[in-house]
Amino acid sequence: MFAEIFENVRRKSPLVHNITNYVTVNDCANMLLACGGSPIMADELEDAVEITAVCGGLTINIGTLNQRTIPAMFAAGKRANELGHPVVLDPVGAGASALRTKTALDLLKEVEFTVMRGNISEIKTLALGNGTTKGVDAGIEDRVTEENLDEAVSFAKDFARRTGAVIAVTGAIDIVADGERAFCIRNGRPEMASITGTGCQLSALTAAFVTANPDRTLEAAAAAVCAMGLCGEIANKRMTELDGNSSYRNYIIDAMYRLTPAALEKGAKYEMR
Amino acid sequence: MFAEIFENVRRKSPLVHNITNYVTVNDCANMLLACGGSPIMADELEDAVEITAVCGGLTINIGTLNQRTIPAMFAAGKRANELGHPVVLDPVGAGASALRTKTALDLLKEVEFTVMRGNISEIKTLALGNGTTKGVDAGIEDRVTEENLDEAVSFAKDFARRTGAVIAVTGAIDIVADGERAFCIRNGRPEMASITGTGCQLSALTAAFVTANPDRTLEAAAAAVCAMGLCGEIANKRMTELDGNSSYRNYIIDAMYRLTPAALEKGAKYEMR
Amino acid sequence: MFAEIFENVRRKSPLVHNITNYVTVNDCANMLLACGGSPIMADELEDAVEITAVCGGLTINIGTLNQRTIPAMFAAGKRANELGHPVVLDPVGAGASALRTKTALDLLKEVEFTVMRGNISEIKTLALGNGTTKGVDAGIEDRVTEENLDEAVSFAKDFARRTGAVIAVTGAIDIVADGERAFCIRNGRPEMASITGTGCQLSALTAAFVTANPDRTLEAAAAAVCAMGLCGEIANKRMTELDGNSSYRNYIIDAMYRLTPAALEKGAKYEMR
Repeated sequence: MFAEIFENVRRKSPLVHNITNYVTVNDCANMLLACGGSPIMADELEDAVEITAVCGGLTINIGTLNQRTIPAMFAAGKRANELGHPVVLDPVGAGASALRTKTALDLLKEVEFTVMRGNISEIKTLALGNGTTKGVDAGIEDRVTEENLDEAVSFAKDFARRTGAVIAVTGAIDIVADGERAFCIRNGRPEMASITGTGCQLSALTAAFVTANPDRTLEAAAAAVCAMGLCGEIANKRMTELDGNSSYRNYIIDAMYRLTPAALEKGAKYEMR
Repeated sequence: MFAEIFENVRRKSPLVHNITNYVTVNDCANMLLACGGSPIMADELEDAVEITAVCGGLTINIGTLNQRTIPAMFAAGKRANELGHPVVLDPVGAGASALRTKTALDLLKEVEFTVMRGNISEIKTLALGNGTTKGVDAGIEDRVTEENLDEAVSFAKDFARRTGAVIAVTGAIDIVADGERAFCIRNGRPEMASITGTGCQLSALTAAFVTANPDRTLEAAAAAVCAMGLCGEIANKRMTELDGNSSYRNYIIDAMYRLTPAALEKGAKYEMR
Repeated sequence: MFAEIFENVRRKSPLVHNITNYVTVNDCANMLLACGGSPIMADELEDAVEITAVCGGLTINIGTLNQRTIPAMFAAGKRANELGHPVVLDPVGAGASALRTKTALDLLKEVEFTVMRGNISEIKTLALGNGTTKGVDAGIEDRVTEENLDEAVSFAKDFARRTGAVIAVTGAIDIVADGERAFCIRNGRPEMASITGTGCQLSALTAAFVTANPDRTLEAAAAAVCAMGLCGEIANKRMTELDGNSSYRNYIIDAMYRLTPAALEKGAKYEMR
């Protein structure tokens, strides 16, 4: 199934509009190109709504949030909803500051998201209205482990049911859930946390996958999460003892560029709960 | 001739001011350094005019266009004109949104550009006042091929005559034209389109080349286009089966860093039409 | 001593808030992760003050300075002072424009900096109130050489005494001084100047080092400068004849990721003056 989903990305080359932070934006653009999609960035109110209309999907990422681009996020999100385009939310740092938390919660009220992807602290902040995010990383007390996995799955399904969005909680174990089913994914490497923006890249990637597979949002989001983790594994095998996080970043994007649908199908490690 | 032009870049180390987008800005800075130039970025009205004055040349790139930096583009462009500094326009996404199209057309009215570099859809938008740019890529119906090359050359020469600028239309075949002569360039690799910002990098590079060669704008712009394409070819030879678009990006900048004037002279593939 | 300082960075993983430019921000984030720290970027007034409070240290970098983020710099700086967090200033381009010079000088009046790191022209601009910075590079007439080193050391100590900050002047020879003592550091490679943002990365790195070593600011800043230079040397050894400034950038960050406290201790090249 994941092979077919990925083939659709490669074949349709979805054009994805990203309103995102300036820290990781270049990597998001190259990751979108690597998977077969096409990126465009526009964050000015007047520009963003129109750019959203010419694209197939939209990612809203609230890292380096500022007052200039917040109106563009709301307007582009609503426009994408009107057009039936998928919208992915990456609530970077929600729970770490009032502006980020409030903006993320307000977005949830006014925009219908197709997928929300974040670490467990960010997603808990969205679900509970407040959080304990440590900067842009999950708080240790929140982390998903084998012990609390069932509980985390229930939480994700509940939140998915409540919002109608697919919920992707990523970390050592990833959960991708709608109201009924959850993929528990064990692809990836801990070293990915030493690269800035692997989460942002995954959100952009997810937008490409769900845009190219409009009738299978849950599976497409799960395929994106597996693909990102699998590329982290493939890239890790390529690391020499001189390589560090900067080369690892390049190798992960390279791995996505080279990944075949068959390799994704074979390398995806997940169970349903 | 291209050897001498490139030697001038290396020898004079032109300081180039870039008002540009935040997606590809880091690569533009490293590309400028790779060719022997020196980059500075400043996009606040108050800062930009003064920075332009201490530089030798200016690039205006309208990717991630926003209301804050538009006034800086106009003011810096006019100041560069007053000082006789070359100004390069990269109309990223002109034709894809009204803000980008309008801003590019207004810039054309108020700033005298030395070179305008874009894909065929972007340049057609500038010439015709509206366009069919697909996001930041050229529309398929616009693309320059061997079949329509003479027509495209005529179009570029006409637009050059009308504006007094050198027109650089880049794609599978590149055209660099003034009102009288056109370089048709066949350097480059299709894989360059899988990297974000090769066009932006080329515009910044072009600014360095024309700044260091004030009396030979057409030849300098053509040399920059050949150099970029040639580096794409050199970098492509270095690719292993594990490498993808992220490593390719690095290798192209590396190739520019290593490129010699003699190698550019030898590797440039063009004809005059 | 440097081994212990670096071990503290790795062990404490300081969370560093960066208000910085969009040219080199991604490399700053990856450099912070490479050394064992954790980055967060926030530059909107409302967000920045709160983010500063959840972090351990703050870097203020005035590259691509703009009116939107200037108030955030002042407010976050003052908040960090209230909380006793270290604050590092990188006065990028001070002396090259009035806005940058004025903002840097005003910051000096209102924020107590722990460390100020820049090239000699930028630091002279801070000390003298005006300068001759060539874009973002030091003016040739200012450069620190073996001949004028004692004079430069005196200048740095005087400025340190006057401001209470550690002064880090980086170039071919680096000086890191408080009012009494100065480290004269001879790590590094001239090729580092061909990469955009090695200075910005060093400022972010310095913030991580002083945050993890609150009682030894001078030594921690000197250790950061040695570490950056040493990584430049290690990365240079890895360069092939195909590699240029883009791969070099990756290799330097990689080298920091792999650097051990013992290797830093052994590789640091400095004398006290």
